[in-house]
Amino acid sequence: MSDQPAAQEQTGSGRRGRSARRAARGGGGPGVQMPYITRKIATYDVLSEEGLSIVEGNADTVLEEIGIEFRDDQEALAMWKAAGADVKGERVRFPKGLCRSLLKTAPETFIQNARNPERNVQIGGKATVFAPVYGPPFVRDLEGNRRYATLEDFRNFVRLAYMAPSIHHSGGTVCEPVDVPVNKRHLDMVLTHMTLSDKPFMGSVTAPERAEDTVEMCRILFGKDFVENNCVVVNLINANSPMVFDETMLGAAKVYARANQATIITPFILSGAMSPVAVAGTLTQILAEVMAGAAFTQLCRPGAPVVFGTFASSMSMQSGAPTFGTPEPSLVSYGAAQLARRLKIPFRTGGSLCASKIPDAQAAYESANTLNCTLLAGTNFVLHGAGWLEGGLSASYEKFMMDIDQLGMAQRLSEGVDLSENGQAMSAIREVGPGQHYLGSAHTQANFETAFYRSSIADNNSFEQWLAEGEKSAAQRANELARSWLGMYEKPAIDPGVEEALTAFVANKKASMPDAFT
Amino acid sequence: MSDQPAAQEQTGSGRRGRSARRAARGGGGPGVQMPYITRKIATYDVLSEEGLSIVEGNADTVLEEIGIEFRDDQEALAMWKAAGADVKGERVRFPKGLCRSLLKTAPETFIQNARNPERNVQIGGKATVFAPVYGPPFVRDLEGNRRYATLEDFRNFVRLAYMAPSIHHSGGTVCEPVDVPVNKRHLDMVLTHMTLSDKPFMGSVTAPERAEDTVEMCRILFGKDFVENNCVVVNLINANSPMVFDETMLGAAKVYARANQATIITPFILSGAMSPVAVAGTLTQILAEVMAGAAFTQLCRPGAPVVFGTFASSMSMQSGAPTFGTPEPSLVSYGAAQLARRLKIPFRTGGSLCASKIPDAQAAYESANTLNCTLLAGTNFVLHGAGWLEGGLSASYEKFMMDIDQLGMAQRLSEGVDLSENGQAMSAIREVGPGQHYLGSAHTQANFETAFYRSSIADNNSFEQWLAEGEKSAAQRANELARSWLGMYEKPAIDPGVEEALTAFVANKKASMPDAFT
Repeated sequence: MSDQPAAQEQTGSGRRGRSARRAARGGGGPGVQMPYITRKIATYDVLSEEGLSIVEGNADTVLEEIGIEFRDDQEALAMWKAAGADVKGERVRFPKGLCRSLLKTAPETFIQNARNPERNVQIGGKATVFAPVYGPPFVRDLEGNRRYATLEDFRNFVRLAYMAPSIHHSGGTVCEPVDVPVNKRHLDMVLTHMTLSDKPFMGSVTAPERAEDTVEMCRILFGKDFVENNCVVVNLINANSPMVFDETMLGAAKVYARANQATIITPFILSGAMSPVAVAGTLTQILAEVMAGAAFTQLCRPGAPVVFGTFASSMSMQSGAPTFGTPEPSLVSYGAAQLARRLKIPFRTGGSLCASKIPDAQAAYESANTLNCTLLAGTNFVLHGAGWLEGGLSASYEKFMMDIDQLGMAQRLSEGVDLSENGQAMSAIREVGPGQHYLGSAHTQANFETAFYRSSIADNNSFEQWLAEGEKSAAQRANELARSWLGMYEKPAIDPGVEEALTAFVANKKASMPDAFT
Repeated sequence: MSDQPAAQEQTGSGRRGRSARRAARGGGGPGVQMPYITRKIATYDVLSEEGLSIVEGNADTVLEEIGIEFRDDQEALAMWKAAGADVKGERVRFPKGLCRSLLKTAPETFIQNARNPERNVQIGGKATVFAPVYGPPFVRDLEGNRRYATLEDFRNFVRLAYMAPSIHHSGGTVCEPVDVPVNKRHLDMVLTHMTLSDKPFMGSVTAPERAEDTVEMCRILFGKDFVENNCVVVNLINANSPMVFDETMLGAAKVYARANQATIITPFILSGAMSPVAVAGTLTQILAEVMAGAAFTQLCRPGAPVVFGTFASSMSMQSGAPTFGTPEPSLVSYGAAQLARRLKIPFRTGGSLCASKIPDAQAAYESANTLNCTLLAGTNFVLHGAGWLEGGLSASYEKFMMDIDQLGMAQRLSEGVDLSENGQAMSAIREVGPGQHYLGSAHTQANFETAFYRSSIADNNSFEQWLAEGEKSAAQRANELARSWLGMYEKPAIDPGVEEALTAFVANKKASMPDAFT
């Protein structure tokens, strides 16, 4: 330990050069983007072959005997009937093997294209892609207020995600721009992703016509032929657990699948309310729901990319509130990842989830527990990777900055152990010998810039130095870092004609309908 | 989510009954102790068979060609010479296979006995034992001050560890009682473990005569014959990395091994200073050091229990400070655990390590990253499980309470997935069906008390309720919980004659020498 100043590197503004260098070394400063993760480490399994067979057999029984409801969508019911399912009212029961057979056309991995091809991501296989938080109506802002989110907040989170080297994807509803009419929000959101970032993004799912708008805007950005033949947008389709898909989600799923775009079929589970209070039982229900929903996308268009999603939380049996970072959701996530691999489709779970209202120790314990599980489960698409607070009700700027630092660490961990001659470092051990130190050795000198992950948030200095620098908490340092980044944001270049066309599309659409606020 | 009050259960005092019930369900309140963990989940491996062979081959080369220094201990050098090692000055070089051959007498698992046999722990195999922080000269107290630790702090941490259901072991120097003369501290520390707790504990290693005192006190507590034939104390023997064992540690190791007591041979590594800036190179050095140190215990007494220890941290290459919870130390810990399993001796690493000065988000991210790795690595003995702050310079009451909650979660996670009929919960899925909820189902009613881990620290309530309750951080709730626990502590029963003999031993020893403060 020394008393040399180092923390000042982590905050303040106007240090682009230093920050870029730090980013290149793996730190969290804006600068050199990291590619999506290609995991060199193993996945962690919690279910044995026997356990997997039990859950799969039970899920088949659920599909065959209990069935799944497809509500308020006659077309979907007709499609299932034509495919050979037993349809009674809105309840669909699936002959053994039907869903698995339909899922054979779904790709094991696919590429989601970004307008900057360097930002394309692979979804599936050994790839892991980090995206920001999705859905919060509130923000916890840089002044410490908790308030409704605005479009400017939305833009800020897109800016921060664009700058964050460890974030590979711009996400979707990074927060709800509550100041924009509810029927027009999606236009501003999609436009923001398309113009303030060059990373891949997600589309609107809150109504079929909003999904259509998303696809139309993608055609403007990428070209019609390109969109027909390539995935350019990923979309979150939640099951209404237990065992229900509703009209809204089915409508959006149909639009995207038919346009050859990706859907993430996600049972949104609070165990105890929406699934049994047991891990194996919850996994059974999740598998049944995903198989039915994902197979439905293949009825819409065989070959359309589809992801096995799950959002796992346990309900507090005292208050009814969701809990995060606890053991049971971790077991669910690990198990669901195994089931997805057996289905041979990509997998989504986890992120940096927590129930805490503020970016304190609770938030961090819960987020780290979730993220460790998410990474080791071999998750392919990680929504809520950064900024999630308060059970997803708030997007936090400070938490965002903390989380992206942790995502950078996850990326480094996923590289595994370097067994090259340089990694074995026998030359260093020989050079240094007993009782000496490695600081000045040739091996250390050659490697120290990149040897260890450098946190952008952690203060590792002495107590005395930390005291002299104002006794700042991690949240305070994250606050300063967010302000600094937003101050140095620069919009990525975009073809002016394309931007004009997108802006015109949004303006025309907005003008074509009255504002709606519910 | 509901607005029902629940957070009040988590704090306050005088709720022994409720707390005990909560502990029985897996929560963090004082009450029913949990047995040491018997892991039902798999270990996580980062090294392939090939990687393990490379590191093992390199470690053999280090032992054979570079060697290890045994400093200021002629007896140790003579023992190595007699065992067939090449001894030149203080440098010992080991013919290929010598250390491995000596280690064959070391037990793969052993029982450490507690004075309350229900608190006995297994060390090795599928067992995981959690012990508190070890070594801090400072405390962060319940008034928010950082100050030198006192004997009363020491007693308080022993009390809290005694009460904590998720802590299986009383530990050793839970903090340095700086108000007691340095040559007499060990007497008060060992007496405190023996009388204020009934869990197993650790002995003094700061001088051979203090180790002798520890053994002598164990003979009073357990009986001389029992101590001769059973492990009753575990002791931390740090290597002076790189590749040195010094007189102090060798002296203590000899005392304990000859008394048939357990040692944990632990290279204390800050990669970059005390080992190469590379994971594989660090693992090589750790393995060589542990093999030499652990083999030495078998020279002292074949069959004496010995643990493969490692303390893995990376040095900040900017400030020279240790960093925790970062990816490289995790890879070291996972890899070292694999190497220990191949040596067939128990393994110690990790805990709840962090560099943060306060129990904030940094502390929690770093601690959770370390603990997740510690658990999945299959660590057998976990020192620093609770209370560690500021790179180990401070023991924190608040952090202790937070960490034991996390240890409880780790214990639950290690139970894995319940695949019984009840765990499969098909009856619940059948009963509830599509679109309903599980809250009132027979399966939920039968299982909800024990279904999910209940945190003693997390606030999962609504934002509005949290606001109404004073906007408390996790650290504030932990503060209240620590005060509550200390207020309800009751000393475990002990044979009055034994306690009198122990007290007399300590008094006589103290009277036999002048105070020393360095």
